[in-house]
Amino acid sequence: MTTIPHPFDQALVLESSAPGHFRGHTSPAYWNMVGPFGGITAATVLRAILLHPDRLGDPLSLTVNYAGALSTGPFTVQATPVRTNRSTQHWNVSILQTGAQGEQVVTTTATAVTAVRRETWSLADVAMPEVPTPEQLDAYPAAPGIEWFNRYDIRPVTGALPRQWNGQGDSSLSQVWMRDNPARPLDFCALAALADVFFPRVWLRRAVHVPAGTVSITVYFHASPAQLQATGTGHVLGQARAQEFRNGFFDQTVQLWSESGTMLATSHQIVYYKE
Amino acid sequence: MTTIPHPFDQALVLESSAPGHFRGHTSPAYWNMVGPFGGITAATVLRAILLHPDRLGDPLSLTVNYAGALSTGPFTVQATPVRTNRSTQHWNVSILQTGAQGEQVVTTTATAVTAVRRETWSLADVAMPEVPTPEQLDAYPAAPGIEWFNRYDIRPVTGALPRQWNGQGDSSLSQVWMRDNPARPLDFCALAALADVFFPRVWLRRAVHVPAGTVSITVYFHASPAQLQATGTGHVLGQARAQEFRNGFFDQTVQLWSESGTMLATSHQIVYYKE
Repeated sequence: MTTIPHPFDQALVLESSAPGHFRGHTSPAYWNMVGPFGGITAATVLRAILLHPDRLGDPLSLTVNYAGALSTGPFTVQATPVRTNRSTQHWNVSILQTGAQGEQVVTTTATAVTAVRRETWSLADVAMPEVPTPEQLDAYPAAPGIEWFNRYDIRPVTGALPRQWNGQGDSSLSQVWMRDNPARPLDFCALAALADVFFPRVWLRRAVHVPAGTVSITVYFHASPAQLQATGTGHVLGQARAQEFRNGFFDQTVQLWSESGTMLATSHQIVYYKE
Repeated sequence: MTTIPHPFDQALVLESSAPGHFRGHTSPAYWNMVGPFGGITAATVLRAILLHPDRLGDPLSLTVNYAGALSTGPFTVQATPVRTNRSTQHWNVSILQTGAQGEQVVTTTATAVTAVRRETWSLADVAMPEVPTPEQLDAYPAAPGIEWFNRYDIRPVTGALPRQWNGQGDSSLSQVWMRDNPARPLDFCALAALADVFFPRVWLRRAVHVPAGTVSITVYFHASPAQLQATGTGHVLGQARAQEFRNGFFDQTVQLWSESGTMLATSHQIVYYKE
């Protein structure tokens, strides 16, 4: 019997060529329109950190800047622990590709913090909204031409993709249940990718379809490995909204809860839009 | 007549020793308890970018990671534009100090995006809350021993520093009017620093005074230079709240508006706390 790896794991295969240097390859399964899905790039950055032999602790904070779209083909990830403290470690990460003239092109920059965490007083200050269960909702149909979207089971509660691009949008809030498709046990990399699943808020707020793309995303991880493991292959409730649309860029705030109501991560991004 | 520079400008003096290399010195005027106020460090990172001769556009996004406290004394800022696109530019920045054995110590890592922006459809999706004017409110008194705090005129609307550390906190929300003290015309560096003015949410939510410090902060700039100029020396309304306190770290979301109700910036940070 041969086990075929999950497409997410296939996309994140990294081969170490030197300490902190990894070789990967873009995945057609997570292709967006002009490059990879931003979430798979964020997950790739995090995977490089998690594979590094000198890593201390679990992901706490991750910022990924999309400097340029990756081209189809191989890429190099460089992950460097630039400072290791007693319980936190600071990372610089870059993704590079070889350009047409053989030059090294930076496609992605990133920083991250990993941390050894211990139990303290804790409190959830934003409760999960009351929403129908995933079983009560329909998933989006397949999206021809946006391949990565078909790697997710996404069930909108509110703020679904506009059915009519009529300029009559009135809110930037989306709440969706989501998980990998096929289902896959949740881990830090999958959680980082889920933080970027939301379609551009400008589409929803305006009900106008304009070009848009993430420039920079930050994810704060609140869940422990045990809490991720407890989530298993269950759905994650994602909530996204914009705060300000201004002259070509809007921001988005995101919360991600497990089905049992545990805040797994919070995230933010700044997104380019046209017109 | 001699004009004495504003303490903020004194703290941000950077001398260029080589392209993208700057030499600065920590400022006693912005000293916190075991290092500089995080906001002055964020402003220093941004200042280095703004001084770089190859810079394209204005600040859009800034992430600063506090790897370790700076010691009193000189430091070096290295700011590198790692990728320049048609209208965006991606920056890597580090602050370094010389350690006891003469070694170079990374105290701060950062990434940023600058962008040339043009007018598009725009919309404020989070209105400024209705609050009393700054003139109707009292500023915090001077804080002996927390010198940076005395560089700000901060007038709490709600969520002031607890008067009694009695464990009876019930909200993490603060709204405050704030500006430099003495007043100083607002610019991108001052705005970056203002994003970090809020005392730790864990103090407010618990009304318990525990050690806490920012690990990583991200600022998204929405204002244009003209909008900052229009704000002048007016107060800025800052709103901060936490979303999740978990096992040694909490997150904080921040909005900053001008007195006229313009969203100037949104910001987020992840903060270490003890116990």
